[in-house]
Amino acid sequence: MAKVVTFGEIMLRLAPPGYLRFVQADSFEATYGGGEANVAVSLANFGVDAAFVTKLPKHEIGQAAVNSLRRFGVDTSWIVRGGDRLGIYFIEKGASQRPSKVIYDRAGSSIATAQKEDFEWDKIFEGAEWFHFTGITPALGPNVAGICVEACKTAKEKGITISCDLNYRKKLWTREQAGRTMSELMKYVDVCIANEEDAEMVFGIRAEDTDISGGKLSHEGYSKVARKLADTFNLSKVAITLRSSISASDNNWAAMLYDGKECFFSKTYPVHIVDRVGGGDSFGAGLIYGLLKGMSAIEALEFAVAASCLKHSIEGDFNHVSVDEVKSLAGGDGSGRVQR
Amino acid sequence: MAKVVTFGEIMLRLAPPGYLRFVQADSFEATYGGGEANVAVSLANFGVDAAFVTKLPKHEIGQAAVNSLRRFGVDTSWIVRGGDRLGIYFIEKGASQRPSKVIYDRAGSSIATAQKEDFEWDKIFEGAEWFHFTGITPALGPNVAGICVEACKTAKEKGITISCDLNYRKKLWTREQAGRTMSELMKYVDVCIANEEDAEMVFGIRAEDTDISGGKLSHEGYSKVARKLADTFNLSKVAITLRSSISASDNNWAAMLYDGKECFFSKTYPVHIVDRVGGGDSFGAGLIYGLLKGMSAIEALEFAVAASCLKHSIEGDFNHVSVDEVKSLAGGDGSGRVQR
Amino acid sequence: MAKVVTFGEIMLRLAPPGYLRFVQADSFEATYGGGEANVAVSLANFGVDAAFVTKLPKHEIGQAAVNSLRRFGVDTSWIVRGGDRLGIYFIEKGASQRPSKVIYDRAGSSIATAQKEDFEWDKIFEGAEWFHFTGITPALGPNVAGICVEACKTAKEKGITISCDLNYRKKLWTREQAGRTMSELMKYVDVCIANEEDAEMVFGIRAEDTDISGGKLSHEGYSKVARKLADTFNLSKVAITLRSSISASDNNWAAMLYDGKECFFSKTYPVHIVDRVGGGDSFGAGLIYGLLKGMSAIEALEFAVAASCLKHSIEGDFNHVSVDEVKSLAGGDGSGRVQR
Amino acid sequence: MAKVVTFGEIMLRLAPPGYLRFVQADSFEATYGGGEANVAVSLANFGVDAAFVTKLPKHEIGQAAVNSLRRFGVDTSWIVRGGDRLGIYFIEKGASQRPSKVIYDRAGSSIATAQKEDFEWDKIFEGAEWFHFTGITPALGPNVAGICVEACKTAKEKGITISCDLNYRKKLWTREQAGRTMSELMKYVDVCIANEEDAEMVFGIRAEDTDISGGKLSHEGYSKVARKLADTFNLSKVAITLRSSISASDNNWAAMLYDGKECFFSKTYPVHIVDRVGGGDSFGAGLIYGLLKGMSAIEALEFAVAASCLKHSIEGDFNHVSVDEVKSLAGGDGSGRVQR
Amino acid sequence: MAKVVTFGEIMLRLAPPGYLRFVQADSFEATYGGGEANVAVSLANFGVDAAFVTKLPKHEIGQAAVNSLRRFGVDTSWIVRGGDRLGIYFIEKGASQRPSKVIYDRAGSSIATAQKEDFEWDKIFEGAEWFHFTGITPALGPNVAGICVEACKTAKEKGITISCDLNYRKKLWTREQAGRTMSELMKYVDVCIANEEDAEMVFGIRAEDTDISGGKLSHEGYSKVARKLADTFNLSKVAITLRSSISASDNNWAAMLYDGKECFFSKTYPVHIVDRVGGGDSFGAGLIYGLLKGMSAIEALEFAVAASCLKHSIEGDFNHVSVDEVKSLAGGDGSGRVQR
Amino acid sequence: MAKVVTFGEIMLRLAPPGYLRFVQADSFEATYGGGEANVAVSLANFGVDAAFVTKLPKHEIGQAAVNSLRRFGVDTSWIVRGGDRLGIYFIEKGASQRPSKVIYDRAGSSIATAQKEDFEWDKIFEGAEWFHFTGITPALGPNVAGICVEACKTAKEKGITISCDLNYRKKLWTREQAGRTMSELMKYVDVCIANEEDAEMVFGIRAEDTDISGGKLSHEGYSKVARKLADTFNLSKVAITLRSSISASDNNWAAMLYDGKECFFSKTYPVHIVDRVGGGDSFGAGLIYGLLKGMSAIEALEFAVAASCLKHSIEGDFNHVSVDEVKSLAGGDGSGRVQR
Repeated sequence: MAKVVTFGEIMLRLAPPGYLRFVQADSFEATYGGGEANVAVSLANFGVDAAFVTKLPKHEIGQAAVNSLRRFGVDTSWIVRGGDRLGIYFIEKGASQRPSKVIYDRAGSSIATAQKEDFEWDKIFEGAEWFHFTGITPALGPNVAGICVEACKTAKEKGITISCDLNYRKKLWTREQAGRTMSELMKYVDVCIANEEDAEMVFGIRAEDTDISGGKLSHEGYSKVARKLADTFNLSKVAITLRSSISASDNNWAAMLYDGKECFFSKTYPVHIVDRVGGGDSFGAGLIYGLLKGMSAIEALEFAVAASCLKHSIEGDFNHVSVDEVKSLAGGDGSGRVQR
Repeated sequence: MAKVVTFGEIMLRLAPPGYLRFVQADSFEATYGGGEANVAVSLANFGVDAAFVTKLPKHEIGQAAVNSLRRFGVDTSWIVRGGDRLGIYFIEKGASQRPSKVIYDRAGSSIATAQKEDFEWDKIFEGAEWFHFTGITPALGPNVAGICVEACKTAKEKGITISCDLNYRKKLWTREQAGRTMSELMKYVDVCIANEEDAEMVFGIRAEDTDISGGKLSHEGYSKVARKLADTFNLSKVAITLRSSISASDNNWAAMLYDGKECFFSKTYPVHIVDRVGGGDSFGAGLIYGLLKGMSAIEALEFAVAASCLKHSIEGDFNHVSVDEVKSLAGGDGSGRVQR
Repeated sequence: MAKVVTFGEIMLRLAPPGYLRFVQADSFEATYGGGEANVAVSLANFGVDAAFVTKLPKHEIGQAAVNSLRRFGVDTSWIVRGGDRLGIYFIEKGASQRPSKVIYDRAGSSIATAQKEDFEWDKIFEGAEWFHFTGITPALGPNVAGICVEACKTAKEKGITISCDLNYRKKLWTREQAGRTMSELMKYVDVCIANEEDAEMVFGIRAEDTDISGGKLSHEGYSKVARKLADTFNLSKVAITLRSSISASDNNWAAMLYDGKECFFSKTYPVHIVDRVGGGDSFGAGLIYGLLKGMSAIEALEFAVAASCLKHSIEGDFNHVSVDEVKSLAGGDGSGRVQR
Repeated sequence: MAKVVTFGEIMLRLAPPGYLRFVQADSFEATYGGGEANVAVSLANFGVDAAFVTKLPKHEIGQAAVNSLRRFGVDTSWIVRGGDRLGIYFIEKGASQRPSKVIYDRAGSSIATAQKEDFEWDKIFEGAEWFHFTGITPALGPNVAGICVEACKTAKEKGITISCDLNYRKKLWTREQAGRTMSELMKYVDVCIANEEDAEMVFGIRAEDTDISGGKLSHEGYSKVARKLADTFNLSKVAITLRSSISASDNNWAAMLYDGKECFFSKTYPVHIVDRVGGGDSFGAGLIYGLLKGMSAIEALEFAVAASCLKHSIEGDFNHVSVDEVKSLAGGDGSGRVQR
Repeated sequence: MAKVVTFGEIMLRLAPPGYLRFVQADSFEATYGGGEANVAVSLANFGVDAAFVTKLPKHEIGQAAVNSLRRFGVDTSWIVRGGDRLGIYFIEKGASQRPSKVIYDRAGSSIATAQKEDFEWDKIFEGAEWFHFTGITPALGPNVAGICVEACKTAKEKGITISCDLNYRKKLWTREQAGRTMSELMKYVDVCIANEEDAEMVFGIRAEDTDISGGKLSHEGYSKVARKLADTFNLSKVAITLRSSISASDNNWAAMLYDGKECFFSKTYPVHIVDRVGGGDSFGAGLIYGLLKGMSAIEALEFAVAASCLKHSIEGDFNHVSVDEVKSLAGGDGSGRVQR
Repeated sequence: MAKVVTFGEIMLRLAPPGYLRFVQADSFEATYGGGEANVAVSLANFGVDAAFVTKLPKHEIGQAAVNSLRRFGVDTSWIVRGGDRLGIYFIEKGASQRPSKVIYDRAGSSIATAQKEDFEWDKIFEGAEWFHFTGITPALGPNVAGICVEACKTAKEKGITISCDLNYRKKLWTREQAGRTMSELMKYVDVCIANEEDAEMVFGIRAEDTDISGGKLSHEGYSKVARKLADTFNLSKVAITLRSSISASDNNWAAMLYDGKECFFSKTYPVHIVDRVGGGDSFGAGLIYGLLKGMSAIEALEFAVAASCLKHSIEGDFNHVSVDEVKSLAGGDGSGRVQR
């Protein structure tokens, strides 16, 4: 199937078992994840030939990160080995009124200190149809932002579709830095994905009459945001995920897609959360899959939302669902009856 | 207390910890279960003298299956040892919109390859008052169906009450095969138990105006199904469990009982699911207990529904609740307040 | 910060993993807890200089109990070592309609057999501003009730504020015994805390028109209870927690505070329960913190309710939340959005 | 097969995982065990019809103790339910030069507070051929010692063989108390089992020229001890286990048997220890089995030593080995090659 | 690097945690393994381009088996999906005098019921230099033996070196069946690997004056066996592993290699066993690596023995060691000092 | 008791469960440790008033490190909070010929980026009798080396005894850097501790005729090393630990102490290793304890060696043993018999 390339950071994810708080933990569950890596695994699980590009230290923990991708069929042959360390993030799972908490320990990672010479984009993109990255990657530092630009340029030259999930991270850069760098990168982007806050944080484009914490998300407001984003950056498509947070245990989950002409709004799923990290990435992967497969805008949107709805019921960053499972939910069966 | 005999297959049940999917699991929780074995354990937990009859391989995994029953007081002295293997089933727990998934690996099990000579029903039924089996057992093969017939005949001769839970399994046989074989067996049955789909699957008797996945269950429809079943097979009682699946995490649970004259409908419990496998079996055990104890139809029904409501909060196939706990819930205390 | 002394029993808490019932467990999670110890840990987590006073056996399990308190910053230097054993309690977590179950094995513990000579209250209270105990401590035996009286007297002489959580335990004493002993102790108490049942159980003061199991809690009724308690025992403040139990998985949680003039009622939180043991203690700690810090009555009440709302999402007896986290929830953010 | 009755205490055994010390543990592995219960399980695993008699509290932890015995086929129908608590012991596994450590918390257990009226020995011994108890049981208190005497008398009247493992526990009674009570009980005993210290501790009969900690065990010395024991108490057989402790990880293990005429010494096994608790009990069970089966003295001795050699490789108090496995080792195959 | 193809069965391996016996286990550690799969993973860990060929069911447990290979870099693109089930084996780890125990549940697996049409050997062998299989594969049934023959023929035509590890399994076939089939296959084999028993079991060629269980392994005897094997089947090389079993915890481990002229004997390693399953496979992989890399006979032998010595310290079937680690041990550093 | 101050880095220690290799791990056991922190915990376990000084980030993982020290009674009130991250180290436990492996991820930690202003040594040393640090601390960077110098100066002025464990880490600095910096610091040191390699690595002082990996340690050689160290740096005492590594599972462990006049050599313990990290630190703590308590040179040495012998049987960096346990072993009881 179509080859998709994603580029970014994969981190060691350390999570206390169950609902233990950090100060109670005597062990951590160790998995691996990161925006673009999550997209690659999702796509590989859909049967897509997905490659993930990054730089990882040569030691065994770096190798374990590679293995976590190979295990699920991601092409890791373009991962460069070297540098000092693997980024780490600690995640404590929230419940009821207690929010999940993430502590990042990613400074100085191999990818954050990577150089342009590390990546041969010309070879990497051979045979590829799609390139995906998120706003986290350029936020790792000007050097990585530079690599992103180079990747985008090469992809553009080769006629590869480019998607970007804005994914603003305030711990990594200021809104000003983000705005400047992302504006530069958006020149190359075809499909832009954002959550209900990103557009405002990065570009100052906000949905009026909307109260995110309170769970009030206005359709009209988001339509305007999408159109404005598309117009500003000459995008072919803009997707916005719409999370309404009732508590750490229960969310409503939906999304919209603007296809340059019309705004489509998906069904809303009431999700009982097992693990919500990677929810946005699973949406991105679903959307890329749908568009690659030639689905209509609303079909692709419903596929993407159903995929990410299912992600909320799966532990870890990665979304382990098949195309059939997503289609079954998108097709209306959300009753959760046992499948024998 | 009254002796009850159940006959069928017990399998090794392998489940990934928590909500992990199969492809994420590096260990399996190992318990044992199967329709009739579940009923036997439930009854033993109610203080009934329950025997479970099956055939199991001689090796230590077969022994562990025996031990899982002895641990909870089931009489295992009639279990025959021999044959090649223990049936296995893998179960992945669903959550929210993601359904639970069961993978069966039961072909070639000791019980599926058992012969009539293996069981001395005359001795087994000595002193027994009740015999219970499910539609899964005859579905294991014509040889096992034959053993079922023999068991039923012997039981009938001895004046033992016979109950059967239809439990249609499409992986084991076609609707035609099931219909033919079950019709033969129903001749001996006094009490028939079914879920909201079984009667249609096995005998083509369906509840009109009912949408199971959507959770619309019509009282009138099920009354008709029960009456038709009773009339067709000359049954003294027909019970139907009524599950309305909101999601893999939340179900509504109720049941009805037709006593040859009237149809009784139980309270409906909104259940937050810990483990829903064995829900139907725990209902069957509750009903048998109630009827054995001489409860009225509505009392026995409410006892059975309350017992199986509690089962949904318990890990594994077996229902570990006492008569007092069931009565407390049936009596109205579902508040779940801590008992000190 | 202000020094608070608490006095009572800390027990080894043994809990089957997850939702396993006692008869299914092959291991127990081992933590430590007890009314006053829980309050001490909560306060230490708020930055208060909290000391816990008790008697514990000299062996390593007794030491582990000490360590569980030191780990979270509680001053354990006044814990007396000696006696025969550590009290134990077994707790099985409920779910849905199945209630949690507690089995106590606390008879003969070091603290239950302690003598007046074991504690030098004069030294212990040096520099303290607040003394807290619960109705469980005097219930351990007349000797311990006597020690309580002595502690209260000494505290009173030093002008230390005294709070008491009624915490009636029917397994430890009769209502008559409780009423007699607690009436004696209430002479010294300034702030009384109770749950929706305690006042009736201990002093026969009940809220009319209220159905606890059914979840009907009347504001007016509780206002009367609080006023009557305050009048009877000359209390400066009375707080009552108001739990409405929908199921073992879902509760509504609120509280009221009577400040001698007015009755304040807090917001009600719908809590999805991770572990509800210690909920009342976390409320007490929150209230003590608020009052020590000079918050207004309603502020202190909302702080206390928010603190204990969060406790319901935390495993074990102890409430591991910071002042900031409590204030954030009390301030209105209960959406549970991930904090990165 | 022959019915054997054993009588004593079964306790909840709480062990930190792996080699963790008590102060490091955040969970305990929960199994059940006790001298006579261990013998009963061993015998049941050998196919013997073994009954264990005790008194246990009615609650679920007491039930779990019953279940732990039923699981392995022990007849628990004579266990009396009542009393306040289940005895507990904590065990920390040693390694290398660090010894294992046991903390007992058994005072006030149901069996320790049992009364003569609790047990109907006449019925219990119906059809029995052998009665076994250890020196721990009478050490629980004069009431329990009295019950032991009664059991012995009844057994003697019925011509049942009686065996006793001296098992001196210094935490339970003084040497003087033990000597007096055990001398009384030895009147009824046919087969006495002791370890390398017991005879001296209880009766002051010691092996000269022997240094137990240093691992020097003199054959001649133990022969004299055995003969003296047999002569003093008119015993038909005396067995002494001979443990030479190199470290907590490595022991040499052997035993001797005096059959009234001759002293036989078994092979010595160098054992690499997985769990050494219950080693002596597994020897006792092996000896009882051998003698019941009519093996010669040396055969029975080698069977018993091989059985208990294997026990040292098995977690928990219980010895889970079959007759075939014991015979294979006794027959010379200690190479530990994989059995496929 | 050079491409190696291996062909055979991979099974789900279910092992109780630690040293628990089967009847004690309430969970199983789930890994995957099988002779030729183990060789493929070893080689992939050495940096070799290793492909494993088999047939696996389409369901998620089959997928997990594929993933277990992909995770460590094995090329799984030639694995055929279909058939009914994945073979399973249960393994209980031995210790001291208690042997490890394996229970096979492999009948009816997808590979055991595979047909010639399933595999396109011509394509599979494209670019390959080496083909490896073991005696287990043809033992799965005449159909699989036939596939082996076809694979060998194709490999031979392409000038690919063929190695075979005799690996006699008495549960799968008789010595007569094995002798007949393996003789046929040996026509194509260049390098034969055997353990200290295989040659006798399969071909009746035995080492005189050798007592395997007793650990007496005669150099002269094995030299004769190797020469006879080489002469009989016109082999270029014969390797024999020499395990001397002191106990389940301690083995001595060595091997010999006959290169058509001379017999070389390796160093002997005293191994303290963590997991000995897959020991022989790790030797085979080491030998293939050494020979592929052009090492001298003694170098290749020492590399192979050191690799498999390390395997004994690693959990699971797979040998996770690097070339550097093997060389370091082969070069003399077996002190096990911490590497920082 | 006497107050001891230690200064250095404490890290999060992440270890795969059991003997799993890094690439097999799906979880890590999380403890905390570091040379000087380990010494502090050991001393606190001996009843010494031990303070540990470092800098840690403000977040919850930093707090968990503080808690790990408080839990065992270490005074953490001088720990400065701030900076970016907590150092981490990954440790994979070796077995048999496979060595343990450590991967450090400590660059950029709060303590490595600390400044002189962070620590008020004058206050910290109030009432202290002893100051201890290791060669790891100055190796963290010139800034930290500078802080060490300042601490040493202040301690010297106050007449506090200073001990230093050379602890050369080649990953942190070159031998030249180490030599230069450590020479400067040794001016203040009274008691120097080294392992069998350190003196050579740091100061080029080596024991002739000694083969560490081979386990040949010459008494004479080490006596010369100790005397030379003492003479060069005007030390009052020099201790050298003597580890002879048979394999990762078995070591011989001993030490020597030069008291300015004589060289004493301890007993040698054959240790079966549970966890050998922190072995040297536990020796240092034992030596400090012995010398503080006024033991003779040989007594202090034997106490220190026995303490660290026991450490090898304990999981994690910390040595959880009491003075009584150490004295019992030093006094000759290494038989590891169960203590009831």
